[in-house]
Amino acid sequence: MAPISLINADRLWTRLMALAEIGASPAGGVNRQALSDGEIAAWRRVIGWAEAAGLTAATDAAGNLFLTLVGRDGTVPALLVGSHLDSQPTGGKFDGAAGVMAALEVVVSLAERGETPARDVIVVAWMNEEGSRFAPGMMGSEAFIGARSIATIRGVCDPSGVSVGEALDRLHAAFPDLPRKPLGFAAYAYLELHIEQGPLLEQAGRVIGVVTGIQGKKTFQVTVEGAEGHAGTLPQRERRDALAAFARMAAALDTEMGNIDADIKFTIGRVTVEPNAPSIVPSRVIFSIDLRHPSNEVLDAAGARVVALCDRHAPPCAVVVRPLVDAPSNDFDFGLREQIEQAARHQNVPAMDILSAAGHDARHLAKVCPAAMIFIPCRDGASHVEHESAEPAHVAAGASVLAEVVRDHVCADRCLAATP
Amino acid sequence: MAPISLINADRLWTRLMALAEIGASPAGGVNRQALSDGEIAAWRRVIGWAEAAGLTAATDAAGNLFLTLVGRDGTVPALLVGSHLDSQPTGGKFDGAAGVMAALEVVVSLAERGETPARDVIVVAWMNEEGSRFAPGMMGSEAFIGARSIATIRGVCDPSGVSVGEALDRLHAAFPDLPRKPLGFAAYAYLELHIEQGPLLEQAGRVIGVVTGIQGKKTFQVTVEGAEGHAGTLPQRERRDALAAFARMAAALDTEMGNIDADIKFTIGRVTVEPNAPSIVPSRVIFSIDLRHPSNEVLDAAGARVVALCDRHAPPCAVVVRPLVDAPSNDFDFGLREQIEQAARHQNVPAMDILSAAGHDARHLAKVCPAAMIFIPCRDGASHVEHESAEPAHVAAGASVLAEVVRDHVCADRCLAATP
Repeated sequence: MAPISLINADRLWTRLMALAEIGASPAGGVNRQALSDGEIAAWRRVIGWAEAAGLTAATDAAGNLFLTLVGRDGTVPALLVGSHLDSQPTGGKFDGAAGVMAALEVVVSLAERGETPARDVIVVAWMNEEGSRFAPGMMGSEAFIGARSIATIRGVCDPSGVSVGEALDRLHAAFPDLPRKPLGFAAYAYLELHIEQGPLLEQAGRVIGVVTGIQGKKTFQVTVEGAEGHAGTLPQRERRDALAAFARMAAALDTEMGNIDADIKFTIGRVTVEPNAPSIVPSRVIFSIDLRHPSNEVLDAAGARVVALCDRHAPPCAVVVRPLVDAPSNDFDFGLREQIEQAARHQNVPAMDILSAAGHDARHLAKVCPAAMIFIPCRDGASHVEHESAEPAHVAAGASVLAEVVRDHVCADRCLAATP
Repeated sequence: MAPISLINADRLWTRLMALAEIGASPAGGVNRQALSDGEIAAWRRVIGWAEAAGLTAATDAAGNLFLTLVGRDGTVPALLVGSHLDSQPTGGKFDGAAGVMAALEVVVSLAERGETPARDVIVVAWMNEEGSRFAPGMMGSEAFIGARSIATIRGVCDPSGVSVGEALDRLHAAFPDLPRKPLGFAAYAYLELHIEQGPLLEQAGRVIGVVTGIQGKKTFQVTVEGAEGHAGTLPQRERRDALAAFARMAAALDTEMGNIDADIKFTIGRVTVEPNAPSIVPSRVIFSIDLRHPSNEVLDAAGARVVALCDRHAPPCAVVVRPLVDAPSNDFDFGLREQIEQAARHQNVPAMDILSAAGHDARHLAKVCPAAMIFIPCRDGASHVEHESAEPAHVAAGASVLAEVVRDHVCADRCLAATP
């Protein structure tokens, strides 16, 4: 069997483009944030495709979506394959969606070939990977592996005051007939295809990235408390200007983080100023910090420096630095990486090892089962932007490699001797 | 006649508190921004009080509110007395409202005493003094004196995209029977009572501030243009991070403005970050600058420095610094100041000369007619905050001084020999 026939590349691309119409932005991107109307519409479309192929849809208390091709033995752990359907507010067509649609194509093709897998194969779309509406992200996979309680997650609010709990109830109400799986059922392994979100595959002329691991990440929410005042009357020396304190912190952090290590990635992406009126001295600034590095030692040092610099530059304001995410770097399963590399070689697709600079749900799944990721190139390395772009041939190649790895794990006559 | 009998102090305070219920915030302040539902409700209440006393309500194309006590000679310019009804988003009960209600009390009391003034006396509430919803402020008085065209003003949008034009049409639609005065009819003089918004009267133990003038003010809107990118993958050296550039600018401006002159007041009050998501390198930051000083020379030098510092710290981002307001310091009419000082002495209220650190509509009116302002103390100098507070006795004393000056200008047997 020629490997490419493991999937229908045209159908995959057509469906991926159809999915991108949901939440489509005028500039060609996608705004389909977690638990939004757009994500509900995306669920409806994806469930429709899955059920037409005989898959069974289900959800769980965390708003994860599961589309199951039932296997011969329902008592053994299922193979999970997927990614996420939510996007950044000005996101692109591929981040998350490519992985879910590739997984769906792989499993639908399995079903169409009349294969009954040795175990359940489940296409999964994790809830709120992006963390743009509700911070931090990866809530669905965190709840699934038990890293954070569903009660805690439900209490998180978006900037307009809507809680995850309210939004989850709304999602579930939109699909009243969907059965609920228990949170965190046993998984045999987890596979995720994703665009690279960086330029390395493109620059190296490779189509498949065998992801070795994910760089470590720390995020913080920093709250600077000052005192409101009239811009025209309050003397400068009597001010406790939260914006001025924020500016000192942000400028110092940007300079010093770069000095710690050239590979550090430091971002202040979200800033909220109160009361945010031109003639009022700001009383409060809340801002996000996103810090990443492949080395846990460097990351820990940088994280400590964040706290120290915020403390140093706050006075006469007060500051609270609240750690949100503290995810050390991780390595993916060596056996699965080998199998991805072999499938790529078998299909004559140029591959290379690559470290993920971005976080993914696979980071969490790797804590409870063998996990691995397949990267495909995205143009100019641009991601989290509306012009994010990937080649149809690369999406097809990635899905085809994924299909071969999945097949070799669940199709009886080809089951690998060693489970990962 | 004892001076205090020129007004009904209890009614003034009761009405001022009743007005503060419209847009009341939980923390005891007021959120009644320009052309909002709250301001429409405030108009309705104030017009009701005015019409009950025989005053005639009207508006103009700029959404200014006029409440006229008709005088003996309608062909001569009218005396205008007033302030504004809009507030900051987290404003107090007195800024603007005290001046309108004092003016209304003065004119209603005139009418009740059966006085027919020599000329029309008009209580005025100017549209959008605060500039928090639509920037910059003082739009109504600017349109009235012809400093800015009504077409330009109508095109300004609030952060949610609603234009002044749309909001004005909505205001006018709420009062379909209100006659329209032409923009910028001739004014005999303009008087405005206001809380000081600073601590000087309180510190000096004086109740009346005879305002000598207003310190100069420049405002800018600065737009920093960078490029969006993924926080986890885009190397620091390849970034054009608009937030990082903003932080450099803001930190440098805050330091250097203080070095130019200790009396400079420099504020960055509003910041908008795009796309404002924790894991996206910001592509655009738009921020406001508010700069004030009594000396026009210092202000001009500081304004030039603003542009230079933004340009210096922008790379690798681009920056556009757009001047919004350039209001030099001004002196109020000497004759009117004398009369305010005399009325205070006559009523045994301790007074002192004072420079206004905040801008007021009187700044604009002073360009087309003699103008002056009366300040009253506010507790701790706090203004543009929800706990802004003024004493009932001080509000009454200010209104009473205002009443005496108004009476001496328009009541036939007491008309001052020299018009100002």
